[in-house]
Amino acid sequence: MTQKASEVIRKLHGKSLVTAESLTGGGIGDVLTSVPGASAVFKGGVISYCDEVKREVLGVPGDDLANFGAVSAPVARAMAVGARRVLNADVAVSATGLAGPGGDEFGNEVGTVFIGYSDEKTTIAEEYHFTGSREAVRNQTIEAALELILEQT
Amino acid sequence: MTQKASEVIRKLHGKSLVTAESLTGGGIGDVLTSVPGASAVFKGGVISYCDEVKREVLGVPGDDLANFGAVSAPVARAMAVGARRVLNADVAVSATGLAGPGGDEFGNEVGTVFIGYSDEKTTIAEEYHFTGSREAVRNQTIEAALELILEQT
Repeated sequence: MTQKASEVIRKLHGKSLVTAESLTGGGIGDVLTSVPGASAVFKGGVISYCDEVKREVLGVPGDDLANFGAVSAPVARAMAVGARRVLNADVAVSATGLAGPGGDEFGNEVGTVFIGYSDEKTTIAEEYHFTGSREAVRNQTIEAALELILEQT
Repeated sequence: MTQKASEVIRKLHGKSLVTAESLTGGGIGDVLTSVPGASAVFKGGVISYCDEVKREVLGVPGDDLANFGAVSAPVARAMAVGARRVLNADVAVSATGLAGPGGDEFGNEVGTVFIGYSDEKTTIAEEYHFTGSREAVRNQTIEAALELILEQT
């Protein structure tokens, strides 16, 4: 994972990167900053573990949270867009999903994860269905987030 | 570490907790949210890896950053106070320090860390001098942050 984080830091040289994390709770930022020299690229992030922080800090529309739930593509995209704006960065990655043990009221199963990516030109969200323990789901999410950044930049 | 995080989540039941992390880059949030049910207490956090995010998002005074440096007690306190306000929480913990490899222009050595704590009544910062690798310094910081919360609540 640290190797993939190093690749991200190397590849984004000259750009700034920020995160908006829900289920990973800071794990993407943790892995990125395990790389010495990460500060050349990584500015910071918002850990939006609850909906209130998604809405009030990142500016995720309350309608999206109510209609699609926090674990959805529109919310993943809005988290990434919000992180770029609030933290003033070139590139943002976001993650929202269900690490378990419980599902949600929208019928999503444990392991359902949406990862968002936003830069000046592109804003997307990808859907994943991971398996395994809470820790396994969170780790696969962190890895997929790093991969999405590498793919898109 | 996860056991200490569980203790924090249990002990803060009925209160809300947020983080403001610099050198740990999200590691405190990551450990807290490794605990199933963390969402009852942990709302989120701001990863303020660069000074701009400390200033613009958390509201750390630019004068404090200029006069004392990012690795200082006043900045640790301001980060915790800012996190409580921005994320609307009862309790905040913050961490700023030098994980290495390099020192800073204020003469701080690698391993120098300030951990801040703020609740409705108390705002403090404690100074630490950790040793070991970048990873070791970051891990000791996360553990000390959890301990400071347990001591103060």
